[in-house]
Amino acid sequence: MARIALTARFRQAVTPNALRSYLAEFISTFFFVFAVVGSMMSSRKLMPDAASDPASLVVVAIANAFALASAVYIAANASGGHVNPAVTFGMAVGGHISVPNAICYWISQMVASVMACLLLKVTVVGQHVPAYAITEEMTGFGASVLEGVLTFGLVYTVYAAGDPRNGAVGGIGPLAIGLMAGANVLATGPFSGGSMNPACAFGSAVVAGSFKNQAVYWVGPLIGAAVAGLLYDNVVFPTQVPDSLTGVTEGVGVF
Amino acid sequence: MARIALTARFRQAVTPNALRSYLAEFISTFFFVFAVVGSMMSSRKLMPDAASDPASLVVVAIANAFALASAVYIAANASGGHVNPAVTFGMAVGGHISVPNAICYWISQMVASVMACLLLKVTVVGQHVPAYAITEEMTGFGASVLEGVLTFGLVYTVYAAGDPRNGAVGGIGPLAIGLMAGANVLATGPFSGGSMNPACAFGSAVVAGSFKNQAVYWVGPLIGAAVAGLLYDNVVFPTQVPDSLTGVTEGVGVF
Amino acid sequence: MARIALTARFRQAVTPNALRSYLAEFISTFFFVFAVVGSMMSSRKLMPDAASDPASLVVVAIANAFALASAVYIAANASGGHVNPAVTFGMAVGGHISVPNAICYWISQMVASVMACLLLKVTVVGQHVPAYAITEEMTGFGASVLEGVLTFGLVYTVYAAGDPRNGAVGGIGPLAIGLMAGANVLATGPFSGGSMNPACAFGSAVVAGSFKNQAVYWVGPLIGAAVAGLLYDNVVFPTQVPDSLTGVTEGVGVF
Amino acid sequence: MARIALTARFRQAVTPNALRSYLAEFISTFFFVFAVVGSMMSSRKLMPDAASDPASLVVVAIANAFALASAVYIAANASGGHVNPAVTFGMAVGGHISVPNAICYWISQMVASVMACLLLKVTVVGQHVPAYAITEEMTGFGASVLEGVLTFGLVYTVYAAGDPRNGAVGGIGPLAIGLMAGANVLATGPFSGGSMNPACAFGSAVVAGSFKNQAVYWVGPLIGAAVAGLLYDNVVFPTQVPDSLTGVTEGVGVF
Repeated sequence: MARIALTARFRQAVTPNALRSYLAEFISTFFFVFAVVGSMMSSRKLMPDAASDPASLVVVAIANAFALASAVYIAANASGGHVNPAVTFGMAVGGHISVPNAICYWISQMVASVMACLLLKVTVVGQHVPAYAITEEMTGFGASVLEGVLTFGLVYTVYAAGDPRNGAVGGIGPLAIGLMAGANVLATGPFSGGSMNPACAFGSAVVAGSFKNQAVYWVGPLIGAAVAGLLYDNVVFPTQVPDSLTGVTEGVGVF
Repeated sequence: MARIALTARFRQAVTPNALRSYLAEFISTFFFVFAVVGSMMSSRKLMPDAASDPASLVVVAIANAFALASAVYIAANASGGHVNPAVTFGMAVGGHISVPNAICYWISQMVASVMACLLLKVTVVGQHVPAYAITEEMTGFGASVLEGVLTFGLVYTVYAAGDPRNGAVGGIGPLAIGLMAGANVLATGPFSGGSMNPACAFGSAVVAGSFKNQAVYWVGPLIGAAVAGLLYDNVVFPTQVPDSLTGVTEGVGVF
Repeated sequence: MARIALTARFRQAVTPNALRSYLAEFISTFFFVFAVVGSMMSSRKLMPDAASDPASLVVVAIANAFALASAVYIAANASGGHVNPAVTFGMAVGGHISVPNAICYWISQMVASVMACLLLKVTVVGQHVPAYAITEEMTGFGASVLEGVLTFGLVYTVYAAGDPRNGAVGGIGPLAIGLMAGANVLATGPFSGGSMNPACAFGSAVVAGSFKNQAVYWVGPLIGAAVAGLLYDNVVFPTQVPDSLTGVTEGVGVF
Repeated sequence: MARIALTARFRQAVTPNALRSYLAEFISTFFFVFAVVGSMMSSRKLMPDAASDPASLVVVAIANAFALASAVYIAANASGGHVNPAVTFGMAVGGHISVPNAICYWISQMVASVMACLLLKVTVVGQHVPAYAITEEMTGFGASVLEGVLTFGLVYTVYAAGDPRNGAVGGIGPLAIGLMAGANVLATGPFSGGSMNPACAFGSAVVAGSFKNQAVYWVGPLIGAAVAGLLYDNVVFPTQVPDSLTGVTEGVGVF
């Protein structure tokens, strides 16, 4: 009985609609990571000797904001526009996406991130792909807490954007998500990097060949995302118990 | 009789919906203050020797705009998205929120601001939390007037965003609020700081341990907010007398 | 007969709704000019010795974009959100606002601009209010042509934003207007200043006490605005003949 | 029979509505190219000796984002808001615009781009119009691939924005398109320039008199656009077969 349910769950992960949602996640995550990592490379190319300056932070922050808003927008219909393993995790914790679907989302997001970084490495000769890293003064624990709090804010915004009770202001949801990401990068860019996205940190680390501090970009974000999902659904905006674990909600995440 | 009414009013301040609205205010104000104060710390980290440069102003201004737009967005449903004691004051003056509720909003906003600054202080080692301060050439009175005018603009925008008669353009309300805040910071950042938010000034002052000029960030904004509320409701867009002082409008501020 | 009509027209310019629309124009123009001129002063304060740098251009351009979007938003309901004598002129040419109303709009906008610049002058001690000026290499004619083309783009966008046939995308109208202004400033800021707004140029010139090149900021924009209005209504999106010259359309401009 | 169909097709390219759509494309492309090329000239004027700096990248990227969002917005009704020969090509490949109409769109866009660059050259004395060029380390092939991928993202976003199934978030379509363009410029500006728009590259090359690397800005974008159109319509969001090749869909591109 449990086994049949398990088979059914995995079967729903390969329906045409589900496959489309993975492709949509792939495309959105690809362009998000491309813009974020590319903008880091751009600002380094323009100012190679100096460590960094406020204008570089503006470059990376608005790349995050612009790219995330448009990436969520173009995938909203097909996959819910997660563009981020932490968001997918937060959605799975809240029961808005089944576990097999979530796993396939993760795979799409990871592969997309690695490919975006590879494309940058291959086409942009003479500029290294940078990996996320925390600043010297910070501890790994502090950075994890910071990334966790940032991701809480992001996933909370994703939940709010996907809430049909949002009425008139609901239409700017993808934009609100992007702006939250941009604001968070402005606040923490020079400290922990402001990744909030394990896929983005993973892809750049793979291509850069440096997995230092990688745990920071996984532990914090996943915990923050789970807390955000539980808090939104159960405390701030309680709803009826979702039946998405038994019902088949193909590729529907947020919108 | 009056006493019963008073008890009833305070009772409405602890209903589940009201408690949820305080939590929503807490979360939104936390992320707003986190982004604003964090962005100040980021730009100082990137350019520690120089006093400041235009790119730093861009960092702080777009952090204000992005963070306020998304903070208002995520709280719009639950609390009306005040994110600012001055806005709550302006709403109370206009009769859109009862006094007990407004007091609880204030407490949520203050605590959130202090906690956001504390988190930054604890995790970001080796960088001081900055308090808002006015530039040397300005007088405290001039800065108060400036902050009051800025806050007038902000609260007026909040009123406009919450006006159901706004029709088609109503959906971008949270964005308009954020953009007004960003524009105001661009205009006055290097002079009075462009706070417009007593909670933000209070939290950073508590953690920085410096209450110099604190009155500037309270007197001006509260007066500006009250004038904005009265002007909007009574002169520019007069409406029927709201019955919110007798009726129980739980946690409904703007949207 | 003609005299009666004239009296009737002037009488419609002092109805309560019309007076409200003038107040709304006053408030919106005040905050727009405040942000634009204030941002110029901010960036000069931060970088006084150097002539200018790209980050200063970003400061002024996003101040234009943010402030115009929110200023149009908050006045959309009451006055149509012109915030600009050139826009009012373009609307009058197209018959969307009667001449007496348009004159009162102009007066509101001018007074608001002067007062915004005065407030900046009084509160921000030790920083001069800058007047718009064209760069040395340019001719006054070239600058007028440039400002005229920019204003054409702006007024055309205002017409598009006010077009009820715009359907789903109509809601972001104030934002589109602000973004067009910001883009134009980015393109021409270091050359002609990218004013597009005679009120803004007038107010800063009055307070700065320098009317050099003032004609540039009036001739070009007014011609550009008139051409935009005529082209939009008659060629690109032809509509029925508006009866706004005889009918009393109080304070309705765009939205 | 085929000949009659051909004549009919060309006849539909000169109906009043079609002519209006060409004019709308002309105006939108003019202001887009004006802002993009003008912003490049602005940042060079402000920082002539240095090669470039991150703030210049911000100037050009937000000029792209702001100008494209507003240009798409103002043409959405009349022409679908392509503003880009690659987008028109992608739409023609997907069958959303007939070939004769697409050719006229191209001509409008090219002429508009050349005229915008000419206006800048004439009015802005003492500043050369810059042509797009790739950085020294890159190969032409690599740059073509990069521009192709960028244009894929842009055209995919245009398709998503024009999809009526987008529901509540559909209203911010022009903004999402602009933000995608801005993010792409931030990622690749210092490498391939991030044109994504053959008309923009063509116009600046004509006026600058330098056609070096011009192929890069045509081959990649057109291929990327075609792939995006086919993928969106057939794989990610499959729809019924459009009958736009036989039916006369005058000037309807996206919205």
